[in-house]
Amino acid sequence: MQSDSFLVSLLRDKAMKKISDDITTLADLIKKGDRKALARAITLVENEYVGSDILLKIIQQKDTPVIGFTGPPGAGKSTLINAFLRHILLMKKKAAVIAVDPTSPFNYGSLLADRIRMSEHFNNENIFIRSVATRGSLGGLSEKIIEITDVLRAADFDFIIIETVGVGQSEVEIAGLADTTIVIVVPESGDDIQAMKSGIMEIADIFVVNKSDREGASSLVNNLKKMLMQKHESGWSVPVISTIATSDEGIDELLEKIILHRNSNAFNEKKILLLTEKVYQLARNYRMRGLKREDIKKRLEIAKQEPSFNLYRFVDDFKN
Amino acid sequence: MQSDSFLVSLLRDKAMKKISDDITTLADLIKKGDRKALARAITLVENEYVGSDILLKIIQQKDTPVIGFTGPPGAGKSTLINAFLRHILLMKKKAAVIAVDPTSPFNYGSLLADRIRMSEHFNNENIFIRSVATRGSLGGLSEKIIEITDVLRAADFDFIIIETVGVGQSEVEIAGLADTTIVIVVPESGDDIQAMKSGIMEIADIFVVNKSDREGASSLVNNLKKMLMQKHESGWSVPVISTIATSDEGIDELLEKIILHRNSNAFNEKKILLLTEKVYQLARNYRMRGLKREDIKKRLEIAKQEPSFNLYRFVDDFKN
Repeated sequence: MQSDSFLVSLLRDKAMKKISDDITTLADLIKKGDRKALARAITLVENEYVGSDILLKIIQQKDTPVIGFTGPPGAGKSTLINAFLRHILLMKKKAAVIAVDPTSPFNYGSLLADRIRMSEHFNNENIFIRSVATRGSLGGLSEKIIEITDVLRAADFDFIIIETVGVGQSEVEIAGLADTTIVIVVPESGDDIQAMKSGIMEIADIFVVNKSDREGASSLVNNLKKMLMQKHESGWSVPVISTIATSDEGIDELLEKIILHRNSNAFNEKKILLLTEKVYQLARNYRMRGLKREDIKKRLEIAKQEPSFNLYRFVDDFKN
Repeated sequence: MQSDSFLVSLLRDKAMKKISDDITTLADLIKKGDRKALARAITLVENEYVGSDILLKIIQQKDTPVIGFTGPPGAGKSTLINAFLRHILLMKKKAAVIAVDPTSPFNYGSLLADRIRMSEHFNNENIFIRSVATRGSLGGLSEKIIEITDVLRAADFDFIIIETVGVGQSEVEIAGLADTTIVIVVPESGDDIQAMKSGIMEIADIFVVNKSDREGASSLVNNLKKMLMQKHESGWSVPVISTIATSDEGIDELLEKIILHRNSNAFNEKKILLLTEKVYQLARNYRMRGLKREDIKKRLEIAKQEPSFNLYRFVDDFKN
């Protein structure tokens, strides 16, 4: 008996040692810029495979700027990001893009979407593109978006870009995660500006009016500026930038403002809030693990049959 | 040593026995219709005092109809509830009212609000009124609303009424808790119907157009009916009732429809979903206990100073 359990524990220790070694190797490779290792690491944390918790605890995260691009469908986010990436490449910099694609919950679909949307940079070794599925039908970022971003911050990127569709919860969630949040609108949405959820005004660090060669662009820019005037805080006044992503116009100004924002007092004050939000969400995700309405319903349907059924005794089973 | 710890455990057992006895007595009194005991029990669960968990596990909940009244400020919810209560009293029935008052986060303020709004029935022994504070600035029902409702269901009421202001999250949350959700609108809101969040259309089991003697009432009723036509499900077509709460008009029809809804197939199918939602929320509240952004921020500000700071090691402290 003794020797048996000794053997088991020896084997377990050995297995753990092996995993730990693998993870250490993986962390080293990520740091050196190995893209295959990075992709593997993301898959690891995305699926909570064995060792993912160790990885997150040993990698050293840099202070890589995380930039969120959000806006309604059709605003030209992907085109704008493509133009932005061209700019970055010209400067001999490296960037990672996380695309949160609400239309394709499956990896294959997401991968395909990547290839179509980002095709221009797909084979460039200085650009790393990864799609992640949304959490639910309401949009909302992937449950692992924080972990994925932190893995990317251990690599050799100069920028990390997160693209989300500005519907549902995603746009609010991105503001809690990105260092700089860029909200993209188009002249067509001009009429909606008044009705625009005040939430959007709150989250934008930078506004981009894309497709600014279209009718109504300048009045949209003016309206936005007027609305934003009331919102000076922390000494950062939210700029409104006109771009035409298809012809690279305004992209240099966008990059300039991003860097300006990052060096601002506003960002410095935001930092602790971003970190707080990350801790809160990581802890919440952990605590809420395994609590699924479908499971509750299934088990309720059986438990309810019993005459002695009591809701509060039933709930006890779901508390941990 | 042995005898010391024996003494401690004896005293603890005795104290527990005492609490348990008290709770059993409380449960009996609630069942018999004792209003003071009921008020005490609600305070007990609202504040999670010792014994509250025992109480919830031993009380026997009846199938008392829980009716949610929601709608924008100024729609006349309180007046409508007052008229509804008059109706119930004429029928020799008993009702409890939980008022969720977003403007007064303090108990004293809430209590005062009760007295003003519900003064007509405040001293009637067949009507029990209780105010609870909202959870946060965004509205949202009290975190203990489920438990409070369940305590009320152990008493001798024929109806339990929950009044919430139809802004922020409250209106969605009430739909997950009430057997029948009544959405109250007024002709003045007519223009907004088109812009009305689809959410409101989803949650209403019954629509009430109050102040229906005002201009625009009949066109509002017609518009609502038209919009609701597209939403037949489970065989329950959402009725639109015209009321003038100040002169009791339409209240009999409202009561009739409430009873009709409760006996409908739609409600029968909704039951398991309501129960699932209750379990989910109770379990979530339990799991999320003590996780507060302010605490995280305070501890982060210190922990961040350390050069060896790692977010994922830091999060470990907040996982349980």
